[in-house]
Amino acid sequence: MGALHAAHAALIKQASNENDFVVVSIFVNPLQFGPSEDYLRYPRPLDKDLEICERMGAALAFVPRVEDLYAAPQQAFVEVGRLAEHLCGAFRPGHFRGVATVVAKLFNIVQPDRAYFGEKDYQQLQIIRRMVQDLNFPLEIVPVPTIRDADGLALSSRNAYLAAPERAAAPVLQRALQSVRRVIEDERCADASVAKSYGLRVLEAEPLVRVEYLEIVDADMQPVQQIKGEVRIAAAIYVGKTRLIDNVGASL
Amino acid sequence: MGALHAAHAALIKQASNENDFVVVSIFVNPLQFGPSEDYLRYPRPLDKDLEICERMGAALAFVPRVEDLYAAPQQAFVEVGRLAEHLCGAFRPGHFRGVATVVAKLFNIVQPDRAYFGEKDYQQLQIIRRMVQDLNFPLEIVPVPTIRDADGLALSSRNAYLAAPERAAAPVLQRALQSVRRVIEDERCADASVAKSYGLRVLEAEPLVRVEYLEIVDADMQPVQQIKGEVRIAAAIYVGKTRLIDNVGASL
Repeated sequence: MGALHAAHAALIKQASNENDFVVVSIFVNPLQFGPSEDYLRYPRPLDKDLEICERMGAALAFVPRVEDLYAAPQQAFVEVGRLAEHLCGAFRPGHFRGVATVVAKLFNIVQPDRAYFGEKDYQQLQIIRRMVQDLNFPLEIVPVPTIRDADGLALSSRNAYLAAPERAAAPVLQRALQSVRRVIEDERCADASVAKSYGLRVLEAEPLVRVEYLEIVDADMQPVQQIKGEVRIAAAIYVGKTRLIDNVGASL
Repeated sequence: MGALHAAHAALIKQASNENDFVVVSIFVNPLQFGPSEDYLRYPRPLDKDLEICERMGAALAFVPRVEDLYAAPQQAFVEVGRLAEHLCGAFRPGHFRGVATVVAKLFNIVQPDRAYFGEKDYQQLQIIRRMVQDLNFPLEIVPVPTIRDADGLALSSRNAYLAAPERAAAPVLQRALQSVRRVIEDERCADASVAKSYGLRVLEAEPLVRVEYLEIVDADMQPVQQIKGEVRIAAAIYVGKTRLIDNVGASL
């Protein structure tokens, strides 16, 4: 969606190191925004984005207009089923349908051999992986680890919305996720509600924060009661009016 | 879906004449059958099918097993929206979702430059065209006109289910559609319910026939009240236990 930051830059750089010809798609996709969301005010610093693409070794930036991708009212959509039921999918109806549909379009237009997606949007990554598997797209999905500021805040284009006190409060999200991870891994806590309560306490201590969800899920993005094996701890919070998401892995 | 007959043969032949390398997919797709439909008894004469493919100039037959295309429970689907609301879509819930999903898979596996579809399944043809347009599949859909027996019955693998008296009754479907077309084109009848009543009368005169639907639709597969310009007259009937469909174009 553009508004490229250092994590996008690292992702493009990695793609350039591993491939002969890298295409970056830059498209703020209306189909994945809800009616009350930030589609109109989402940042679109195209010149700066193109400069980053070039500097990181991209061969081509694909920057379609809305009317290029949605010439007629869209009637065919990719639906992703239960992977989209919880976490962000529960709070952003139609969001992942919009994501999966535009990614299918971009795959068919660009026809990449590999496509790189950041782990910060973990549910999105799992959904795209499943779409590729279930619809037999002839390409490989490469996940790229989340990049964080020194205080732990995951890089996101939406961090630009944060006023100074909000920016100072925002790292509480990563601290909360880490506190859940430690309860699971260091204290061998298998009870998901107990583990979550540690993270919620951390978040609720921060007055600028409103919690949307904090969940512990399996690889199918289904909430677990008893933790066993690999899980993902994922949360969405509002800091002021800005919605932030993050996630970490844990295993027991 | 295999069980190839003379209309499939003509379609393959046309594809061979117009392309360097023709792939025929043969796959009875469980995802497009309802629980009470004929998935299990659908004919699968593979040796005969392969012989026809070869004779008509196909270079490759792609014959996946069910577990090749549906290794894990399918979670991602292509949904086709309002084009699937009426006609067969109304009577076969999930059918066109199953068709669109398997065709998307086949497109991604085979990666054809052109794909040939018969006009007998007209709603399917329109849905596939729309899917290709909306999801930007890099290929061209080529429609192939319906082929009929001398008495007007459209060729269909399901004609093999018909007992002799049913086979004798089945051409009433095409006669009914033609009677609607004539009322529209020759008598300039713009009222769809009046035009339909002519076709329904023809069908209801045949005791072996039960009508599922007879509809006059626009290019978006929406029923019209007032006929103007190009329309499609489509019907589905049961002759005994065998479901048959057919359609004709008309314009006013």
